[in-house]
Amino acid sequence: MLLALDAMGGDNAPHEPCKGAILACREFSDLEIILVGNRAQIEPIIDQAADDVRRRLSVVHTEEYISMDEHPSRSIRQKRHSSLRLAMEMARSGEAQGCVSAGNTGAIVAGGVLVVGRISGIDRPALGVAMPTLNKYTFLLDVGATVRAKPINLYQFALMGNIYSKYILGVPSPEIALLSNGSEDIKGDEVIASAKEMLKVSSLNFTGYVEGDEVPFSKADVVVCDGFSGNVVLKFAEGVIQAVYSIAKEEMGRRILPKIGMVFMVPMLKSLWGRFDYEKHGGTPLLGVKGVVIKAHGRSKAPAVASAIRVARNFVLQKGVEHITNELHKEV
Amino acid sequence: MLLALDAMGGDNAPHEPCKGAILACREFSDLEIILVGNRAQIEPIIDQAADDVRRRLSVVHTEEYISMDEHPSRSIRQKRHSSLRLAMEMARSGEAQGCVSAGNTGAIVAGGVLVVGRISGIDRPALGVAMPTLNKYTFLLDVGATVRAKPINLYQFALMGNIYSKYILGVPSPEIALLSNGSEDIKGDEVIASAKEMLKVSSLNFTGYVEGDEVPFSKADVVVCDGFSGNVVLKFAEGVIQAVYSIAKEEMGRRILPKIGMVFMVPMLKSLWGRFDYEKHGGTPLLGVKGVVIKAHGRSKAPAVASAIRVARNFVLQKGVEHITNELHKEV
Repeated sequence: MLLALDAMGGDNAPHEPCKGAILACREFSDLEIILVGNRAQIEPIIDQAADDVRRRLSVVHTEEYISMDEHPSRSIRQKRHSSLRLAMEMARSGEAQGCVSAGNTGAIVAGGVLVVGRISGIDRPALGVAMPTLNKYTFLLDVGATVRAKPINLYQFALMGNIYSKYILGVPSPEIALLSNGSEDIKGDEVIASAKEMLKVSSLNFTGYVEGDEVPFSKADVVVCDGFSGNVVLKFAEGVIQAVYSIAKEEMGRRILPKIGMVFMVPMLKSLWGRFDYEKHGGTPLLGVKGVVIKAHGRSKAPAVASAIRVARNFVLQKGVEHITNELHKEV
Repeated sequence: MLLALDAMGGDNAPHEPCKGAILACREFSDLEIILVGNRAQIEPIIDQAADDVRRRLSVVHTEEYISMDEHPSRSIRQKRHSSLRLAMEMARSGEAQGCVSAGNTGAIVAGGVLVVGRISGIDRPALGVAMPTLNKYTFLLDVGATVRAKPINLYQFALMGNIYSKYILGVPSPEIALLSNGSEDIKGDEVIASAKEMLKVSSLNFTGYVEGDEVPFSKADVVVCDGFSGNVVLKFAEGVIQAVYSIAKEEMGRRILPKIGMVFMVPMLKSLWGRFDYEKHGGTPLLGVKGVVIKAHGRSKAPAVASAIRVARNFVLQKGVEHITNELHKEV
């Protein structure tokens, strides 16, 4: 298995992506990674890897890269030698079986469409997140690729989410729901209502609307929404958890008793934290494009990059792109 | 101060609304409440109140009410003797200075527009929530009155949020932000981008886009969004906190040490919980209508109803409706 990694993407590049590549190659002995980026910066980092890992890491040198705040489509069009674009071209040509980047989200989406290309019949791509919920994973999409969606987009997101849930997350018959502002039939707007009608007559196991507070309780296997809602919802929840944590820490600093209490709670907190740790669950697939494109969080450290590489590997092994292509032609 | 309470609204009516009225009258000796609903059900509950409270509670009898799953505008139009509609009519006519209901949200919004009426110049109303964030309250609107907003709606929500934050929450010069899927200028869709341009040239202290994860960190005093996003975001965050709590409880059940640890943590947890307790912070104003209309959460227990009554009282005292009306005519 050969994957391309945008070594210059993300807030902690190139150090953490390179370290992440080492971690992933340690985990999977069949894995080879092409690191795309500045050779002079990359080699000193990967040279620290053990021989059996180092020999599976190669570098494609480039001095151009796309920063986090550049204009997405403009940068991907103009920076033809950027590390992100080169990694995506490898995924398109087949030179690599997939690519991973912790870089500029908009540029990854734009590159997915402009460089890798959409699967024939797919109107707009979607970014999906496998979110840890009460007693399983819920796959939420779109979380930012398609800001405002048409009914056909939501319908296709549901199809793609179904495939991802079934083949990559291993759910036999995924329950698919549409995110809405209430569970009653009269809720939602025209777009969501039309998507609901399309989904009702589809072959999917569609269960109707789901409200925001039902999602963390594992109400559905796949939750479909437009990229705006998905993005603000996901980020808001991240922010709430961080804020609670930060307030708890502050309270802790003011009191003696809780500090004693905490000592007893370490194993529980570790287990609790593990379930919500984005480092462990990193790796957001860009669905609807003719290749494996996995986005890691911009703030990713090495373990999160390794997790995104794991997702890419899994997506290749489970033939995610082929399944979406086939299913789409069956439905339409 | 005389307020009307829809005693039949909410999942726990009439018991909890009636108890809530008692709590509120105990707190404010200037407060009188008209309870609208079934006299035979209401009187046994309020008769338990102490004399000085009981004499400030009166009943307007009706046998009609709007249930939680009825069609919003249809029910408010057709059920002319429903407890919600009668309470709203009192707020419109001036018989009461405001009204409170824990009932059907859609019917409250529809009643706000159809019964109480919009403030001249206001295109669509908004429901706002004063959300506890890291070190202050952030006023989030709309959380469900106007599902999809036009730029003028978002602009007016910002105006109304500014007034609420300034006069009711006591923030001298509120920072106003637009919720978006990224903080860069190119984010958002056409609606949000147009609203941004309107806000930039307004007299408001507008600070631009805010991302979901920045909100819980008190990034702005007022955060503006459409009712769909606001609703799913708020509910999702509620759900995440409940799910974390539920997982923690389950872990706790499995282990001995955390139980011991918890004993030490009680005061800290109480303080932490207090900051996020919706019971204490209940009471969502419907802004943009010609009267004081406050919605309590459908699952409200007595303290949450009392909190909503407190919000209504405060809104009346601070002349919220007059301020919005004046400000609107200044801006346009």
